[in-house]
Amino acid sequence: MDNTVTMPGADLTAIFDRMSAIGARPGEGVTRLAASAEDGTARAFFATWMAQGGARIVQDAVGNQFACFDWAGEGSPWIFAGSHLDTQPRGGRFDGTLGVLAAGCAALDLDAEVRAGRTRPTHNLAVVNWTNEEGARYQPSLTGSSVFSGALPLADALALVDGAGIPLGDALAAIGVDGKTGHIPPRPEAYVELHVEQGRTLTEANRRIGVIEGTWAARKMTVTWIGRAAHTGPTPMVDRRDALLAAAQGIAAFEAIIAANHPHLHRSAARLVVEPNSPNVVVERATVWFELRGLDVAELDRAGDAVLAAFSTAAACTGTRLEIAADALRPPAGMASHLMAVVGETARSCGFEPLIMRSVAGHDAVALQNSGIPSALIFIPSVGGVAHHPDELTHPEDVQAGLAVLTAVLRRLVQGGFHAA
Amino acid sequence: MDNTVTMPGADLTAIFDRMSAIGARPGEGVTRLAASAEDGTARAFFATWMAQGGARIVQDAVGNQFACFDWAGEGSPWIFAGSHLDTQPRGGRFDGTLGVLAAGCAALDLDAEVRAGRTRPTHNLAVVNWTNEEGARYQPSLTGSSVFSGALPLADALALVDGAGIPLGDALAAIGVDGKTGHIPPRPEAYVELHVEQGRTLTEANRRIGVIEGTWAARKMTVTWIGRAAHTGPTPMVDRRDALLAAAQGIAAFEAIIAANHPHLHRSAARLVVEPNSPNVVVERATVWFELRGLDVAELDRAGDAVLAAFSTAAACTGTRLEIAADALRPPAGMASHLMAVVGETARSCGFEPLIMRSVAGHDAVALQNSGIPSALIFIPSVGGVAHHPDELTHPEDVQAGLAVLTAVLRRLVQGGFHAA
Repeated sequence: MDNTVTMPGADLTAIFDRMSAIGARPGEGVTRLAASAEDGTARAFFATWMAQGGARIVQDAVGNQFACFDWAGEGSPWIFAGSHLDTQPRGGRFDGTLGVLAAGCAALDLDAEVRAGRTRPTHNLAVVNWTNEEGARYQPSLTGSSVFSGALPLADALALVDGAGIPLGDALAAIGVDGKTGHIPPRPEAYVELHVEQGRTLTEANRRIGVIEGTWAARKMTVTWIGRAAHTGPTPMVDRRDALLAAAQGIAAFEAIIAANHPHLHRSAARLVVEPNSPNVVVERATVWFELRGLDVAELDRAGDAVLAAFSTAAACTGTRLEIAADALRPPAGMASHLMAVVGETARSCGFEPLIMRSVAGHDAVALQNSGIPSALIFIPSVGGVAHHPDELTHPEDVQAGLAVLTAVLRRLVQGGFHAA
Repeated sequence: MDNTVTMPGADLTAIFDRMSAIGARPGEGVTRLAASAEDGTARAFFATWMAQGGARIVQDAVGNQFACFDWAGEGSPWIFAGSHLDTQPRGGRFDGTLGVLAAGCAALDLDAEVRAGRTRPTHNLAVVNWTNEEGARYQPSLTGSSVFSGALPLADALALVDGAGIPLGDALAAIGVDGKTGHIPPRPEAYVELHVEQGRTLTEANRRIGVIEGTWAARKMTVTWIGRAAHTGPTPMVDRRDALLAAAQGIAAFEAIIAANHPHLHRSAARLVVEPNSPNVVVERATVWFELRGLDVAELDRAGDAVLAAFSTAAACTGTRLEIAADALRPPAGMASHLMAVVGETARSCGFEPLIMRSVAGHDAVALQNSGIPSALIFIPSVGGVAHHPDELTHPEDVQAGLAVLTAVLRRLVQGGFHAA
C-alpha cells in the first residue's frame, strides 16, 4: 500500500466505499476470507488509513490489528473499539467491516478533539480488526478475539487448517503476519462494537439503535459418518456403506426432530464435506457442521441429545460409523450491564430510544465479554434482516445513527465515564 | 520420460508394478485423475514402454493414446485392444490399467511372433489408452472413447470443466496433449477390452473368465436445489430457503422410494457440491449426482419419475427451486455376438470355461459398441467385488488367465479370425 495515497480521513461513507471494493465482484457481494489475499489487501488499506490519521499500527501473532491512539500515555488503561474485516464467501459489505471503519472514524474525530483540547482522555484508544471472526475458511469462528482474550491458545489457532489443508499460521504469514508483534496494547477496560443486526427485530420495533443485553446459546456439532468407498455400479446394494446417505438421513432427521419438538430453536446444517466426491464412488466420509441456537441451555442439551440419537440411527441404517468430531456448547452471554447503561443513556442523548435486545449470533464482543473483558455491542438495522448475502444493506441514516452513538460512547469511556448517570 | 531407461518388455507383473507406483500413496491406493500431472506421468510411461517395444505412438486431440503395430501395412484394417490409465481418487491399481498393460504385453508377444513368422497378421493392432474413462474429475465418463466413436463432439469434450473450473482442453494441454494428432488409426473392425469385474459374480460362480453379453441400463440425473444465502444465526426460520436441507431430503427420499419399490435397482448419490459451504451461511445451491441402474428401461423410467416427484416435494418443503441439470438414459448395450463367440471359444481352448454375464458398469468397450464399433469385454474376478477402493485386488492367477485369453483372442483377430468354429 502506497503511503502517499490520500485517504478519506473520518468520512465513513467514503472509506466504506473504498473498503467495499476490496474482494468485490459484480452481483456476488464481497469475498474476503480470513487470511486470504483479499483480507491482506483490506488489512493494508485499514493500516494505511489509520496511520495517515496518526495512529500507531501494531498486529499480534494471530493477526489482530490495533490502530493505537496513545492519548493518555504509557501505563494508562485502554478502551478498544472495532469488529472484523473478513467476510463470508459472497458476503455482504456491512457485516464486521462497518464496525471497524465506524470505530476508525470515531477515533479520528476524537483525536481531533483531543488535539484541540476539547476532550481530555484518561484512557488510550485502539481501533481493532479481529482475525477470522466469520469462521468461513477456518473453524471455529471468533478466532482472533478468542486468542486475545485467552480463551483459545495461540498455537491451536495457528494450527487450524482450511478445507485445502493450509494452516492458518501459514496463510497469515503469506499476507504479512510474521509473528513480530510490536507493542500490543494490554487487555482493555472496555470494548465497544457496532454491528448490523442481521435480523428484523429493530425494524419491526421501529428503532435505530439496539443495546445487546446478551446472546442466545449455541450448540455446535461436527459429525462424520464413515462408510467405505466402492463402485456405484456393480457393488451389490447389501455390501454398500454409504456415508452420504447417512449424512442425508441425519440432516433430514435433524430438521424434522427440531421442527417438531423445538420449533423456536434456530438450526442449520450449512457445511458438508464429502470424500471422495466422485459420481462413481460410494461416499466414504461425509462430515456435517450442525448448529442449534436458543436461549435455554437445558433445552439445547435435550434437543442435541435427541439429534445425536438420530445420527446414530442413520449410521446403523447405512452400516456406517459415526464420529462426533466436535460438540461444543456456547453458553448464553450476558453483556456488561454498566456499559449497556452507558450506551443506552448515550443513545437517548443522541436522540435515539434504544431497544434492549438479544443477539442470536456470536460476535467478537461476545467472545471478549465471555473471557472477562467488559464489552458492549450496539446494533443498527439490517434491511429485511438479510445477512451473509450480497443483498445485505443498512440504510445511510441508520449508519449515521450508529456512528453518532459509537462516537459519543467512546468519548465518554476514554474520559473514564464508565457509569450512567 | 528418459527413453534410455530399460522397460520390462512383455512382463505384465513387472510393468504393472511400475505403473502402480505412479500416483500411489501408502494406504490410499492410486490417484491418477484424468489430465492430472499423475495421468501425464502414466501416459509418458506407457508411451515409452510401447515405443521401446517397437510401437508407433500417436495421440488424438482428446488425448487418446494409440500404440500402433503396423504389421499389415497402410490401408489394412485395424484391431484395437486397451482400456484406460486414469483412476478414481484413491482408487485401485487394476481398474482400467490392467486392461491397457495386458493389451500392451499381448501386443509385444504377438509382435515377436510376427517377426518370427509364426503369426501372419491381416490386420494392424493398436493398444489404446482412452482419456477420462472414470468421470471422476470431468463428467461425463467415457470421454475419450465417446469422442473417438463419434458419440461426443470433440469441442464439447474439451469444454468440460472440473470442480475448479478448469476446462479439460486446458488440463490436457498442460500434460502435453497439444492437438497435434499424427497418423491416427481409423475405426477398427474390432475392439477387445480386458477388465476386472468389480463384483462378486465370477467368484461366486467359481469361474475365471467372464464374457460380457451386455450391460445394465443407467439413468443418471444431476439435480440442483437453489435456495438463498442467509446467516445461520439470526435469520428467522420462516425466512430460510435451505438448499442443503432440500438435497438431504431428496437423497433420503431417493433411497427410500427405490428400496421400497425397486429394491433390485442399484442406486447412488455419490457427488454433492454445496455453495457457499460455510458453517454460518444457509446453503444457497446444492447439486447432487444421482444414478439408477437396472436392466429394464421401462422400470428406470418409472423409478426415475417417482424420484423426480420426490425431488420436487423436497423443493416445495424447503422453499427452494429445483433445476434438473441432466437426466440421461444410457440404454442397455448388447455386445457383439460374433466376438462373444470368439472369446468364449478361445477361453475354452485356453482351459477356462467362460461365464456369460452382464456388466453393471459402463466401460470403454460399451461406448464403442454403442457407436457401432464391434467390441468384446472380458472380465476376470475381483476379490470380494471391491472396486474404486485401495483394497481392490485381482489374484495373479486370474490376471494370467485374462492375459492368456486376451492374447489368444487378439492372435485370432489380427489374422482375420472373426468367427467361432
